[in-house]
Amino acid sequence: MKHTSTYDELQNHIRELKTPSIETWVNQYHDKDYTIEITNLEFTTICPKTGLPDYATICITYTPDRDCVELKSLKEYFLFYRDVGIFHEHVVNKVLEDFVNSCQPRKVEVTGNFNIRGGMKTIVRAGYVKE
Amino acid sequence: MKHTSTYDELQNHIRELKTPSIETWVNQYHDKDYTIEITNLEFTTICPKTGLPDYATICITYTPDRDCVELKSLKEYFLFYRDVGIFHEHVVNKVLEDFVNSCQPRKVEVTGNFNIRGGMKTIVRAGYVKE
Amino acid sequence: MKHTSTYDELQNHIRELKTPSIETWVNQYHDKDYTIEITNLEFTTICPKTGLPDYATICITYTPDRDCVELKSLKEYFLFYRDVGIFHEHVVNKVLEDFVNSCQPRKVEVTGNFNIRGGMKTIVRAGYVKE
Amino acid sequence: MKHTSTYDELQNHIRELKTPSIETWVNQYHDKDYTIEITNLEFTTICPKTGLPDYATICITYTPDRDCVELKSLKEYFLFYRDVGIFHEHVVNKVLEDFVNSCQPRKVEVTGNFNIRGGMKTIVRAGYVKE
Amino acid sequence: MKHTSTYDELQNHIRELKTPSIETWVNQYHDKDYTIEITNLEFTTICPKTGLPDYATICITYTPDRDCVELKSLKEYFLFYRDVGIFHEHVVNKVLEDFVNSCQPRKVEVTGNFNIRGGMKTIVRAGYVKE
Amino acid sequence: MKHTSTYDELQNHIRELKTPSIETWVNQYHDKDYTIEITNLEFTTICPKTGLPDYATICITYTPDRDCVELKSLKEYFLFYRDVGIFHEHVVNKVLEDFVNSCQPRKVEVTGNFNIRGGMKTIVRAGYVKE
Amino acid sequence: MKHTSTYDELQNHIRELKTPSIETWVNQYHDKDYTIEITNLEFTTICPKTGLPDYATICITYTPDRDCVELKSLKEYFLFYRDVGIFHEHVVNKVLEDFVNSCQPRKVEVTGNFNIRGGMKTIVRAGYVKE
Amino acid sequence: MKHTSTYDELQNHIRELKTPSIETWVNQYHDKDYTIEITNLEFTTICPKTGLPDYATICITYTPDRDCVELKSLKEYFLFYRDVGIFHEHVVNKVLEDFVNSCQPRKVEVTGNFNIRGGMKTIVRAGYVKE
Amino acid sequence: MKHTSTYDELQNHIRELKTPSIETWVNQYHDKDYTIEITNLEFTTICPKTGLPDYATICITYTPDRDCVELKSLKEYFLFYRDVGIFHEHVVNKVLEDFVNSCQPRKVEVTGNFNIRGGMKTIVRAGYVKE
Amino acid sequence: MKHTSTYDELQNHIRELKTPSIETWVNQYHDKDYTIEITNLEFTTICPKTGLPDYATICITYTPDRDCVELKSLKEYFLFYRDVGIFHEHVVNKVLEDFVNSCQPRKVEVTGNFNIRGGMKTIVRAGYVKE
Repeated sequence: MKHTSTYDELQNHIRELKTPSIETWVNQYHDKDYTIEITNLEFTTICPKTGLPDYATICITYTPDRDCVELKSLKEYFLFYRDVGIFHEHVVNKVLEDFVNSCQPRKVEVTGNFNIRGGMKTIVRAGYVKE
Repeated sequence: MKHTSTYDELQNHIRELKTPSIETWVNQYHDKDYTIEITNLEFTTICPKTGLPDYATICITYTPDRDCVELKSLKEYFLFYRDVGIFHEHVVNKVLEDFVNSCQPRKVEVTGNFNIRGGMKTIVRAGYVKE
Repeated sequence: MKHTSTYDELQNHIRELKTPSIETWVNQYHDKDYTIEITNLEFTTICPKTGLPDYATICITYTPDRDCVELKSLKEYFLFYRDVGIFHEHVVNKVLEDFVNSCQPRKVEVTGNFNIRGGMKTIVRAGYVKE
Repeated sequence: MKHTSTYDELQNHIRELKTPSIETWVNQYHDKDYTIEITNLEFTTICPKTGLPDYATICITYTPDRDCVELKSLKEYFLFYRDVGIFHEHVVNKVLEDFVNSCQPRKVEVTGNFNIRGGMKTIVRAGYVKE
Repeated sequence: MKHTSTYDELQNHIRELKTPSIETWVNQYHDKDYTIEITNLEFTTICPKTGLPDYATICITYTPDRDCVELKSLKEYFLFYRDVGIFHEHVVNKVLEDFVNSCQPRKVEVTGNFNIRGGMKTIVRAGYVKE
Repeated sequence: MKHTSTYDELQNHIRELKTPSIETWVNQYHDKDYTIEITNLEFTTICPKTGLPDYATICITYTPDRDCVELKSLKEYFLFYRDVGIFHEHVVNKVLEDFVNSCQPRKVEVTGNFNIRGGMKTIVRAGYVKE
Repeated sequence: MKHTSTYDELQNHIRELKTPSIETWVNQYHDKDYTIEITNLEFTTICPKTGLPDYATICITYTPDRDCVELKSLKEYFLFYRDVGIFHEHVVNKVLEDFVNSCQPRKVEVTGNFNIRGGMKTIVRAGYVKE
Repeated sequence: MKHTSTYDELQNHIRELKTPSIETWVNQYHDKDYTIEITNLEFTTICPKTGLPDYATICITYTPDRDCVELKSLKEYFLFYRDVGIFHEHVVNKVLEDFVNSCQPRKVEVTGNFNIRGGMKTIVRAGYVKE
Repeated sequence: MKHTSTYDELQNHIRELKTPSIETWVNQYHDKDYTIEITNLEFTTICPKTGLPDYATICITYTPDRDCVELKSLKEYFLFYRDVGIFHEHVVNKVLEDFVNSCQPRKVEVTGNFNIRGGMKTIVRAGYVKE
Repeated sequence: MKHTSTYDELQNHIRELKTPSIETWVNQYHDKDYTIEITNLEFTTICPKTGLPDYATICITYTPDRDCVELKSLKEYFLFYRDVGIFHEHVVNKVLEDFVNSCQPRKVEVTGNFNIRGGMKTIVRAGYVKE
């Protein structure tokens, strides 16, 4: 499979990994606090250890501020990971940082619910609150 | 499909969009705080981008004050959206504002649970509390 | 159907409607706070507008004080509504008031979960706390 | 709503109703018998009696012969019914006839599973086998 | 409750019991065999022994011949049983006979799925095929 | 517990075990073939080996001939087993024989679905057809 | 059935009813707060009014102090109720008091979830916190 | 783990593998055809390739002839596999042969439903009919 | 995305597409008919029209003859499709042909259950029986 | 089975029991609070009383500090218990202590959900918060 020695390297420099940008549109109700929950049921990456695909459901729940995330652009952002070797824990933290940078939400939580491997299941949750 | 250039225009002026009024009846138990949860399992709009139909379940949970919303009238209000091109996020905020204007509730929460599109699901939640 | 013009009248005078009394027995553990949840899965009334039957699940959760409600008597109380034209919102508030009068509980919550009508579902919740 | 006196007329002449054509592509495996099951979870029509929307899940299971139905074209075919006043029983038989005409399958079954109305649910099933 | 001595009498003369007629409309596709399944989720009668209400789901699956049953009329037919004291076994056989008389179907099956009583559940199934 | 040495003896003479009789009433529709399915969700016996209770769901599906089984009487028949030490396999065969003797059905199937013991679940099925 | 006049008497003196003791073992981790949840899916008593069996799921959730309850002994304790005529409300309070006496937990909650009777379901919850 | 080179050897000689015998008791109803379904929800073996545990649900459905299988003895038979390195396909065929030898049933089917490994699930089914 | 003009070409020449071979091992029980069901819950391809990923569950149920398919090799075979633009209908027929070529089974059925796209779901089933 | 007299001894000295160590890797996001939930669906031990296997689902939810637990190493740690005779309550507390020692998390909760034994189910929960 696609797995090369650079994959392990990647995990230690995961925060520098370049990812596609996510587009936004102007929030018409930014005078109010409300929440948007977007669930991607079809997320896949590569396991950096085995080079085999991993599968997950990624859920983003956020309170927009000035901008809302454009759904089609977010979907394309997720597609980027299809060929990337990356740990479960890093996926969720990376998505969180990119999401915060794109639309500067008041609050956001990202959950990655990864498929069973060897009888074990992993769920990672990370969040952010604007100060 | 019905989708025209005015749809995109509409999203930026969504708060001015004229909608049908919702009728009410006098709350016989307005001396008490209680809640009414109404779920419309058959809500549909038009996607402003593709002109194709969108489908959702809309749930309104409110604490009435002087007036309760009349169910049949609310149902007709929802039917208005069947031919309207409108974003998921705007549907929920628009319904919330119209509902507050109709019966002036003590408290209300509106949730729109939209069907899967391209492997992604969206839920929008907005609320209001009378001061 | 049984629906007459007096039904609409009834909604405006619902709080005066005479209902059967509910029997009680002495709570042997009234020195303690505990809760009893009774769910009637087979509740039916008449819709005052159409004269057609409505169906609901009614759930009562209470903390007894000196008295517990006798189950068979409560069941007969519920049967009273089988021929009564009454709004969903009124059913729950009426049952709450009658229940409080019968056993004077420390706390009680009544929920009425009504069947789908025209693609819409209604749940009404009302509660009481002894001061 | 859109409901006019021509709707009732329509039910008696339903078999003459003009509907959009469904496109096809050449079946590369037509030397074999296999089945394709397509389920539209988002089907809606108008009730000819009340003028109010009806909702259903439509499932088509067929064994293709020389041609397979093109999915996007089928989806647009279904959209045609969004503004049509038509009985549940007619929907299923009409879709069956149009489907048979489009791709001339060896075998096909159409099922329409309509949402609850007044506490009652309707499912209609019709089929065809090429002689 | 409404239970009188005539109820027991009724069980032995159940086949003579007068019931409301069920209306029909002309089947536009009577040249084809197809099936219609109608499920009434809100059926209720009186238990002839205790005078207390019984509840059931009644499902009718039929292949129409010249006529289809009109849904609203069928619903009113079911309402007739709301005040009738009748055994579970008799309900299903009675509905079957009345249904056959109304629309003369090619084939029909009636199922009555009655609620739990004393930890026991009863389902009755009866059918008819035109010769 | 109640378990004595006579329990093991009982298993070898299970077919002679005296059980209560089951009452019947005259089938008003005996000119027709139809089925009645009765499920007892609350069946319990004693395990002859450990003297501890066993629990099961017992389902009887039959086509009555001249007589239908009276439900309350059947329920009391089931209660007999509450204090009897008996194998799962014997319960189902015994109930079948007693049921056949009581109402002489055209056809009957008895299923006993016993609760998990030591990570293992047992279901026993036996049937009878009148010749 | 086993039901005698002493049963009704019993309800008024339920707190004096003698029950079997529950054994314990020394908690090796009593320096920590942790919880143990034990659910008995196979609990049965006798209804004092009808003499017929009642069935329930009993759940005990506790934080042990110096002692943990021995599971086999607890199971035998539950078996005691198989022949006892007792109200639902009394079962839960009685089990709670006996449990507290046996292992002196820091905290405990007992829930009894009783099977449907006459279309009605009952759940009783009682708790205790060591001061 | 326990995995040695003899494991791979074992797969080619799996039919000679010695397993514990399964005890039986005399079928009191051998004059009748009935079925017994035993499901072991807690079966585990060792994967011969990785030396790691595999888990499965094993279901045996049989029509006894002269003998019924003794449940406790069957459970001990299943425990034998806890330390055995064996393919999924071999487990089911081996259990089938051993079961047939123990009680000589008229008919038997064995199903092994193995847990997900690497996103893939395996179910193996084998049967036998006495001639 | 990876989508190029050669994709559309591919659909008309799908039967010539080169795929990886699937390894097998010798069936130790080839004197018996038994079935093996393998379900891949994590299958993904590219939609030839949009260049976006598609997702499916692929289930293969077969009766082996001389050879059984090696699971790890099958899994790698499935991975091949991750970057291939191919129709749903072609996936199932292609997998069927490759599977038959690899282990020459007595019988096999392949089912592809594809994720919802635009409110529509597709399931394709194809089978083969050795003559 | 493997059960010897040393097993009972073990329960009183469970805190001294030597277990395999769990490996870790450096948390790249230790400047943030996020949670990782790992569920082992395939955990098994030996019951110290009967020598028979017990089965459970073990769930660990933690907030990492400087280190994250390596999944494969954790899986091997769980395998250690396959041959160990140990109480349910001890499993959860032991896993908690070992987990805290391995990666020094900010917060962790361990839950063990054990399979039904004799109609009873046990769930044990223990937690830790770094001061």
